[in-house]
Amino acid sequence: MATIAKIDSPWGSQSDREAKRNSKRQAVLDTAVRLFNAKGFQATSLDYVAQALSVTKPTIYHYFSNKDDILFECLRLGMRQIQSAIGEVQQSAATGRDRLEVFAVAYALTMTQEFGMCTIRTSDDQLSAKSRKEFRALKREIHESLQAIIEDGMKDGSLIEGDARLTAFTMAGAINWIGRWYRPDQSMSPDQVAQGVVSNLMTGLVAR
Amino acid sequence: MATIAKIDSPWGSQSDREAKRNSKRQAVLDTAVRLFNAKGFQATSLDYVAQALSVTKPTIYHYFSNKDDILFECLRLGMRQIQSAIGEVQQSAATGRDRLEVFAVAYALTMTQEFGMCTIRTSDDQLSAKSRKEFRALKREIHESLQAIIEDGMKDGSLIEGDARLTAFTMAGAINWIGRWYRPDQSMSPDQVAQGVVSNLMTGLVAR
Repeated sequence: MATIAKIDSPWGSQSDREAKRNSKRQAVLDTAVRLFNAKGFQATSLDYVAQALSVTKPTIYHYFSNKDDILFECLRLGMRQIQSAIGEVQQSAATGRDRLEVFAVAYALTMTQEFGMCTIRTSDDQLSAKSRKEFRALKREIHESLQAIIEDGMKDGSLIEGDARLTAFTMAGAINWIGRWYRPDQSMSPDQVAQGVVSNLMTGLVAR
Repeated sequence: MATIAKIDSPWGSQSDREAKRNSKRQAVLDTAVRLFNAKGFQATSLDYVAQALSVTKPTIYHYFSNKDDILFECLRLGMRQIQSAIGEVQQSAATGRDRLEVFAVAYALTMTQEFGMCTIRTSDDQLSAKSRKEFRALKREIHESLQAIIEDGMKDGSLIEGDARLTAFTMAGAINWIGRWYRPDQSMSPDQVAQGVVSNLMTGLVAR
């Protein structure tokens, strides 16, 4: 096939246009998630999101079909950040304890960021039944991975033996809770919070 | 003043009538909280609550002015259960560690019960601005009491020294989370859950 010589089209290349579309779509998500976290999902209208982006509401409908759709994408992004932290430690040959610590700190860091926060601040009964089902499946997947790492550590002797499921809930609770109480303008950095909560969980509180 | 001889009034005594009114009011709360926890606050209409009690909606308005008012009472009952656990350990002369353990187990038990669950399952942006302010003040009070017990334990050497505020958030997260995941029909009893989560927090996870 003959190759067509590329010229500098005033419309940009197709990949340029796709990149622009993606960055606009992402800007909607970035703005929406900030408003959902700060004002609550219910109290945040799409008009308000549009206003914050200096566009009209129909512009937003170019990228998302409704507010639930935006929320679901925000939640999915938050869950993906947690999942990518799991991916990293699943490859590792370290002890269960070490893998748990690395994963837990990364998970906790996610909870100091807007998309992670959203997974805990917004109740999933705001989602459509279909999205809710998908969101809950993602949550279950993360919980099972966390539990599996804990089981590994209990087996290899690096963690105290016990009920891995209950331990996973203990950790998930303490870590998810960061998304409820942490405010980025507070005195502690995200790293300090993540390391601090995980160290409390790993070491416990009782002096020896 | 001459005393009037009491007769068996067919209306009952005034204290009988008050007791009956209170028990009916409590029945509305008991039914509503179960439905809020199971179906979500948004999805639970007052019609549905009335139906579950075999009364009409106007009967419910005899006791509460609206659904928000019922939710607020449910949340207040949950918070009061946690607060009464604090009252018990505040009198005690035991070490910070021992008081923390007793309080944390009682708090965790609350989270396996309907009113406690409600404080974590229902987002407080469902409340009116006035009720939300009051609810948040109650939450802050509980958090401050928890933090004060932890500070005592760090001072008397029974707990590892550290950031008492962060430790209080770590504990509150793991304990509150019980209200999200625990289902009363599961294999673990409320006692097992409460003892298990608190023991994880006190002892930590790392084998020595």
